[in-house]
Amino acid sequence: MLPPQDDPRLLVDHTSGDDAGVLRLPDGSLLVQTVDFFTPVVDDPYQFGAIAAANALSDVYAMGGRPLSALSIACFPERDFPAEWAREIVRGGFEKLREAGCLLLGGHSVRDPEIKFGYAVTGTVEPAALMTNAGVRPGDALVLTKPLGTGVLATALKAGQAPAEATAAAARSMATLNRAAAEAAARAGARAATDVTGFGLLGHAAALARESGVTLELVAADLPLLPGALELAPRFQPGGLKANAAHFEPLTEIGATVDAGVRALLSDPQTSGGLLLAVAPATLSALLAELPEARLVGRAHPAGEHPLRVR
Amino acid sequence: MLPPQDDPRLLVDHTSGDDAGVLRLPDGSLLVQTVDFFTPVVDDPYQFGAIAAANALSDVYAMGGRPLSALSIACFPERDFPAEWAREIVRGGFEKLREAGCLLLGGHSVRDPEIKFGYAVTGTVEPAALMTNAGVRPGDALVLTKPLGTGVLATALKAGQAPAEATAAAARSMATLNRAAAEAAARAGARAATDVTGFGLLGHAAALARESGVTLELVAADLPLLPGALELAPRFQPGGLKANAAHFEPLTEIGATVDAGVRALLSDPQTSGGLLLAVAPATLSALLAELPEARLVGRAHPAGEHPLRVR
Repeated sequence: MLPPQDDPRLLVDHTSGDDAGVLRLPDGSLLVQTVDFFTPVVDDPYQFGAIAAANALSDVYAMGGRPLSALSIACFPERDFPAEWAREIVRGGFEKLREAGCLLLGGHSVRDPEIKFGYAVTGTVEPAALMTNAGVRPGDALVLTKPLGTGVLATALKAGQAPAEATAAAARSMATLNRAAAEAAARAGARAATDVTGFGLLGHAAALARESGVTLELVAADLPLLPGALELAPRFQPGGLKANAAHFEPLTEIGATVDAGVRALLSDPQTSGGLLLAVAPATLSALLAELPEARLVGRAHPAGEHPLRVR
Repeated sequence: MLPPQDDPRLLVDHTSGDDAGVLRLPDGSLLVQTVDFFTPVVDDPYQFGAIAAANALSDVYAMGGRPLSALSIACFPERDFPAEWAREIVRGGFEKLREAGCLLLGGHSVRDPEIKFGYAVTGTVEPAALMTNAGVRPGDALVLTKPLGTGVLATALKAGQAPAEATAAAARSMATLNRAAAEAAARAGARAATDVTGFGLLGHAAALARESGVTLELVAADLPLLPGALELAPRFQPGGLKANAAHFEPLTEIGATVDAGVRALLSDPQTSGGLLLAVAPATLSALLAELPEARLVGRAHPAGEHPLRVR
């Protein structure tokens, strides 16, 4: 839609489907930049702020970067919105930024009938540590660092049908920084990463497959799932899940034995989801040992008929 | 509300009332960061995009910086919003960024019944060129680089009561980058600057006065005004104008002879307003010669009873 930006400073912009843009500063160092904001996915304002921060920071981690600074983006209602909620959202985000070593430089707030909150985040990345969508090689192991199902659980929560333990587990997962995952990935020499967010596992895996020119095979039975997600998936599908399935299932060869609930969760839009990492098999066990929640979920193969395969 | 961030990298954060945050990179260079987005102030989508970009970039110029990169923030309705409008808003912004030499690195878009658009912008600034709110000295001349009245004109436009020429002049002014003003200010050795935006001339002048520990005197008859603004001011006052007047007039000694319309425009919230610069008298004529639209609007004095004075 927009003309290309021919500029030697620009390494990654919005056209590659990567998680964040990357540009080179005069001294050769790289800046990673990303922005994300959204409506509440949990009832607790403090937790919502923390999740919004973890989610925005995640794109920097997914590129191999370290967060440096953030600007807040707040849309808060004028009515029926206690000042205490605004304070708690802002405080939850601020403390999560601080946990990440990220400075809050400023922000902008507007009146809006619908609550929305998030951040524009800037990070730095060593050129050798940059992980993009284009680095997957055939034979690489695919690792997912957080369980799937946040979209289904948020939808069940809105309908008042999510068990409290399931909601708490989802909130804890969404508020967890992808920092440990990114640091372990760097030590394991991961060549490619993306964070799993709005397009679901299939959508983000498809971007890796396309940019790397490979086929990715996922093993349905090995996917980590949030507690309750499989049981709730048939009944509580967010709109984005159907849109993702319509868009990405045609790119995917799906085995006849794949469970219908797991199949839905493959397209479930995630908020502050985990990293999907591609690593050489030799470093896999060290990576998994560092990240107790992470799971081996598949392999990369030479490009086949479909960019994605699920068995 | 939030605890202070004690960090040697942080030069300016959101607590000082400055236009943008500033942090130091490991190589000693400074990053300037700011975010702004808002609802349409003109009817033409392309022009709205251009104004949103000029407005967001302005905070970088107001700090003495050069824009480097931008992330777009888009809230677009699902219904009654032609795809063509979205394209034109985005294109208007993109071409204005390009005019400023600023790269578009990415962005985030959400569905929202109310159109809102803007950018998070990152710039660089030479440490010696940094202009903050704290640099005004008694004796400095105050220069305003764009005429006042965009809030009044946008309000009249929404009521269908703005003459076409007045609307066109306001749109042209709002879409004009503050780059030339910032470059001329740098050559004139300006010590302090702010851009005049939502808090109006009084509000932003008050921030300069407070941070610099001076009293600023403005001359009502010398203020540049958009065509039509004075005539429309009594009837078309945006909500922000009244809020600004209630907040900042108590800080201001206002002369008995000051025209009521001009008095209203002192508090008119501006979109993409001009820079308010403080320069040594010796460099004033060179500065004004470079900027045909700029006007000498007052002087700085040692701190008096009120931080602001209008005569």
